[in-house]
This record gives sequence, C-alpha cells and structure tokens, in this order.
Amino acid sequence: MGFFKKIFSKNPRLPQEGGIFFEELNKMLGFVPLDLDHYRRAFTHRSSNKVDENGHPVNYERLEFLGDAMLGSVIAAHLFKQVPTGDEGYLTKMRSKIVSREHLNELGRDLNLIKWVESKVSAQHFGENIHGNLFEALVGAIYLDRGFEYCEKFIQKKVVQPYVDIAKLEGKVISYKSLVIEWCQKEKKTFNYEVYEDNGKEGQKHFAIKLTIGGRVVSRARATSKKKAEEKASQRAFFAFQEKINKK
Amino acid sequence: MGFFKKIFSKNPRLPQEGGIFFEELNKMLGFVPLDLDHYRRAFTHRSSNKVDENGHPVNYERLEFLGDAMLGSVIAAHLFKQVPTGDEGYLTKMRSKIVSREHLNELGRDLNLIKWVESKVSAQHFGENIHGNLFEALVGAIYLDRGFEYCEKFIQKKVVQPYVDIAKLEGKVISYKSLVIEWCQKEKKTFNYEVYEDNGKEGQKHFAIKLTIGGRVVSRARATSKKKAEEKASQRAFFAFQEKINKK
Repeated sequence: MGFFKKIFSKNPRLPQEGGIFFEELNKMLGFVPLDLDHYRRAFTHRSSNKVDENGHPVNYERLEFLGDAMLGSVIAAHLFKQVPTGDEGYLTKMRSKIVSREHLNELGRDLNLIKWVESKVSAQHFGENIHGNLFEALVGAIYLDRGFEYCEKFIQKKVVQPYVDIAKLEGKVISYKSLVIEWCQKEKKTFNYEVYEDNGKEGQKHFAIKLTIGGRVVSRARATSKKKAEEKASQRAFFAFQEKINKK
Repeated sequence: MGFFKKIFSKNPRLPQEGGIFFEELNKMLGFVPLDLDHYRRAFTHRSSNKVDENGHPVNYERLEFLGDAMLGSVIAAHLFKQVPTGDEGYLTKMRSKIVSREHLNELGRDLNLIKWVESKVSAQHFGENIHGNLFEALVGAIYLDRGFEYCEKFIQKKVVQPYVDIAKLEGKVISYKSLVIEWCQKEKKTFNYEVYEDNGKEGQKHFAIKLTIGGRVVSRARATSKKKAEEKASQRAFFAFQEKINKK
C-alpha cells in the first residue's frame, strides 16, 4: 500500500503533482524528469530557508557542487574525443574556457532558469552568478534523477552544440558574421540579416533571424539576442558554404 | 571479411593478443578490458617517443586529463550521497583530500602500476608523481573502454572502499589502531598484532595481519605495508565492536 502510495504521489506525470513546472521542465530537458524533488531543490535559493525532516537546509548549493563536477567530466570527454591532437595543457585550457563563470551565466540566462527560482528575496538582488549556479544545480539534479548518460546528452544539446565551437574558442575565428560579410564583399554579393520573429518583450527573450545572400535565404537561426541569432545564422551559412566548396 | 578480421585481431581474450598483460589487467580491474589499446596507452611514458599513424604522440598524458575529470565527478557523487549534511564547502574540501596528489600516488603505488610502464628511461628517474599519473590515466582508459559506470565501480572498489573513511578524513579519527589500543587498556584486555603472511620481497609488497584481543582473533587484513594492514585490521575490529555495542 505504501509502495503504491509512493508511486502515485511521486509520479510527476500526474498534472496535480508536477503541473506547469513538469510540463515546462520536460520540454526544456528533452526527456521526462522522474523525480521532481531533485529539480525543485535545484531551483530553491538559500533565502527560502527550507529545511528537510532532519533540519538540514534544502537549497541548490550542494547540487551546484555535483553539477560542476559532472559538467567538468562531460566536457573533458568531449574535448578528448573531439581534438585528438590536443595535449593535456590544451585540453585543460579549452575546458576552462567552456565552463568559465561567464559562459555558465550565459547558458543559465539563455535558458531563463531564474523564472523557476523559489526564494524570499527579489530576483534583482541575486547578481549575475545565479544564472550559472542554477545551470550547475540543474546538471546535478539531472545526474541524480537519470544518471551520467542523461547528463551527457543534456550537456551535448545545451552546451556543446550551441556553444562549443573549437575554432572560435581557439581564437581562430572571432566572428562568423564578419567572415560572411567579408566573403560577400569579396564575391560582390548582397546580404541581409532580417529579424522575422521577435518576442523580446516576454519573460524569455527570443529572436529569429533570416540571412539572405544574393537574394536567396541561406540560413535561419533563433537565439535569445539579435546578435547571437545573427552569429548562429552566419555560422550555419559559413558551414553550408564550406561544404559546397569541398564538394567542388 | 574486414569485420571478422577486426573482431579477431582485437579480441584480447586470445592469448596471443593480450597475453600476460591482459590476464593481469583483467584480475586487477575486476572486469574484462575490451580494447587493450586504451590500457597500453595508459602505461606508455612520453620517453618511449611513440607516435600514431598521423604522427601524433602516443602516451598517457591526455588520458591523465580525462581520468582526473572522471575521478573528480565520481568522488563528488560519492560524497554528495554519503554526507547529506555536508555543504558545498565541506564537499569541495573532502574531495580535494581524497584526490590529492599524495593520495593518488599512494593508490598507484599500491596497485604497482609502474610494472606495466613502457618507457625509455629507467623507473628510478620517474619521480613520485608517476604513480598518481598512471592511476589517473588508467581511470581515463577505463572510461574510454567501458564507460562511466565501469569507471565508477572501479573507483568505488579501489579508492572509496579501501581509502575513503570520512571520519578519518574529517580528522575525527586519526588512527583506528590507537583507538583499539586505548580501548584494550581501558578494558584491561591483552592485544596482539601478528604478521602471518609477508611476501614483501616480491615485486608487489603484501602483508597480512591478524589482530588478537583477549586471546581471540577479532580481525584480519591485508595491505601493501605492515602499518596499513594493522590500521585496516584495527578499523575492522573497531566497527565490529561498535556493532556489538549498538546491539546491546
């Protein structure tokens, strides 16, 4: 009886249990969260003064420690496999660029994790680092809920694919937009970056950009700022052209 | 045809392929290594000047980076689960004690990993840190060969179980041997630590200790030094007595 009670009360798929939090989390994660308690804790700020049945504080700070470690090892494995020529020093340097405080803050901000924070102080008192801290705590919660492989998939999808561009991190490419513009000027082609979606006024900012070269739409991209969406669209155009060049 | 050729040439279970290295490695790991190349690399010192088909150096230094990251996250997860009362600062401090250079050197030395090293300089020129470096590289090789969960099992068996005693790391218990002696003196009981096996002259040192209290053998332990074996036997006796006390 206790078993069934536990199953039902823990089943986040029941709307009364997880509600909107479950729906939105599920969408953002790309998989079903099994134990919502881990995620609730990942968004509980210490100012909420929550404690568990033994009087221990419940907030995301311990999860930050766990998530930081998981992030470090997933990125280490990614770089190890991706850059077979990089020595230990190179790998260490590249990893610290990827998991820098600045980068993690950007990640957390783009995912708008702060909307889920439970706290007793208002959001403007948090400071910049809360975005990165929440991102780390979320990774920790994923590890506890679903294990290392889900952690790895999530980090691949949310960190590696959108952010980890090794050429750019190495400083070889500063901006894909400037490469595209340079190429258009050299090839005497017109180009245009057009915002075709902008819901920047809502909670989570969101822009969609269409890049037209020589009158033809060559790529589209969405991001949380116009600048980032332009850069993403440029990168896509750049790689599309590279492929064409290589096929010749 | 190529497929079968690859299967057979890579099967380390065939004695001509893996030989003694496979047998010994299998025994030490506690599972079957699938791709011996990862482990061969984990024991290749840079002085061997090996390169792959593309001219890139083949040695264990990149694997050290990977193993260090895996070790960090496995120990983080262990501490997170084991010490629910520890805050972020506590967890960080405890982890750095466990994965300290000194500790890793001890681990590598106890496993006698150096016997597998392929190098062009003689072993006495390596310095102390090679033991820990080889241990990290081995963990990296396990990750590449069998994934995170095997890494976790190996670290549990070789690091956590024999070495991670949280009370001791916290400085609450300095030595179980002294606790046992103190207790015997208080209870007016005779005690004796006896070495009953000693093959310290062979490659891998090995001692077995029998602890007798009040004329009765209460525990036995093996380790790579007499001192460690005595401490292990004392710890076992201590926990056995604790259980008895709690049962009363």
